[in-house]
Amino acid sequence: MFDLYIANKNYSSWSLRPWVLMKVMEIPFNEHLMPFEGGFGASHDVYTRFSPSGLVPCLVDRESDLAVWDSLAIVEYLAEQHANVWPSDKTARAWARSATAEMHSGFGALRDECSMNCGVRVALNGLSANLKADVNRLDALWQQGIERFGGPFLAGEHFSAVDAFYVPVAFRVQTFKLPVSEKSQAYVERLLALPAMQAWYQAALEETWREPMHEAETLKNGTLEVDYRTS
Amino acid sequence: MFDLYIANKNYSSWSLRPWVLMKVMEIPFNEHLMPFEGGFGASHDVYTRFSPSGLVPCLVDRESDLAVWDSLAIVEYLAEQHANVWPSDKTARAWARSATAEMHSGFGALRDECSMNCGVRVALNGLSANLKADVNRLDALWQQGIERFGGPFLAGEHFSAVDAFYVPVAFRVQTFKLPVSEKSQAYVERLLALPAMQAWYQAALEETWREPMHEAETLKNGTLEVDYRTS
Ligand SMILES: N[C@@H](CCC(=O)N[C@@H](CS)C(=O)NCC(=O)O)C(=O)O
Ligand SMILES: N[C@@H](CCC(=O)N[C@@H](CS)C(=O)NCC(=O)O)C(=O)O
Repeated sequence: MFDLYIANKNYSSWSLRPWVLMKVMEIPFNEHLMPFEGGFGASHDVYTRFSPSGLVPCLVDRESDLAVWDSLAIVEYLAEQHANVWPSDKTARAWARSATAEMHSGFGALRDECSMNCGVRVALNGLSANLKADVNRLDALWQQGIERFGGPFLAGEHFSAVDAFYVPVAFRVQTFKLPVSEKSQAYVERLLALPAMQAWYQAALEETWREPMHEAETLKNGTLEVDYRTS
Repeated sequence: MFDLYIANKNYSSWSLRPWVLMKVMEIPFNEHLMPFEGGFGASHDVYTRFSPSGLVPCLVDRESDLAVWDSLAIVEYLAEQHANVWPSDKTARAWARSATAEMHSGFGALRDECSMNCGVRVALNGLSANLKADVNRLDALWQQGIERFGGPFLAGEHFSAVDAFYVPVAFRVQTFKLPVSEKSQAYVERLLALPAMQAWYQAALEETWREPMHEAETLKNGTLEVDYRTS
């Protein structure tokens, strides 16, 4: 049985990736939500109790007494045991892994200027050149995948790990109304409509924690329009 | 047959990872060195001729007419076809993938403050708190791996993909004399002594390109002590 350690659903984009993947793939796990204890990096000492890097997500495989402490490593660990985490076609799989690893180490402006905060809607003061470049790259990448492998998901008919790596982007597009193309907007809505995404979103709205550094980060380049969080 | 597109050996840390891995694993490839045509991001339009993201490294598999455009995706693509890219033991493999993915998306201060520039030696003005934290994390991670799996490499007896992801760090430690522990220093020297690393280093020293933005980045927090480049 798996234990998956995650942080606040409202804020933790890295946690969302394996969580959604495991829900969609129907891989059972015990969820342990460890809310941030202060600003960026402040939870390090708490998280090192289960995660060697002091970061979440971390998957613990109780049977093997093994901690897998990074979202992409978790995906590969699951892929060794479960079919369909990656596409079965070799070309689609290589494409999916490239797009996944590109997200893992890239899209710095998107990450920095549009931090995940599921419950709110923000009017950006404008888009920096780097953010525009990231949005253009998203458009090109998503359309290449959907056209090449036939859609409706990035690497074909089924939701796979590469989609799981872009679900946090769907929340960011929603929060900041990022100007993606029509086709990309349709893909974003497809992701947001997944039952697993709806469940994560509802839980995020019901959270009562407000972490000041994360809240400030969200508004550093825009103004709050709506806060859908319930309390 | 594989084509591997890389950039300047003196500067391109991401290119170094698959290059060293393929050399150590004796996987044949044609090398295409495409020197940076200006500062960061300036080579995008040239690189998109072969790499969808406009970034290197990019592996092209001619037989399948397939581009794999990220260093970690390249590793996984090779691992599907070649034994020993990852350790064969399940636990060591999960650990190695976690450490590899952590490097892929982390160590921001190390990357930012100590950019790879093989040929020079720099006296840092000091270490920022974030850089100290990155160096401490390196020490802890490397020692955990070497102790747990018996060394001399991170995940056991053989050089594997996780070591390939830390070879650029070995050059950074050498250039900036980063204060790692004695055991970590021994690991750094083990990496620097690999024939593949020696070959890369010699080629880097012989390059005549000097890209101003990369040179300035190297010295933004220190002073030049030695330049071993030959021309
Ligand atoms: N490369 C890691 C990154 C994980 C990461 O940065 N996690 C953040 C939360 S989303 C964290 O744990 N931060 C701890 C803190 O802020 O104290 C992964 O993909 O899992
Ligand atoms: N996630 C990518 C990152 C690759 C990357 O950032 N490459 C840099 C060179 S080391 C690049 O191609 N830059 C193009 C430019 O500066 O124009 C990977 O691991 O392959």
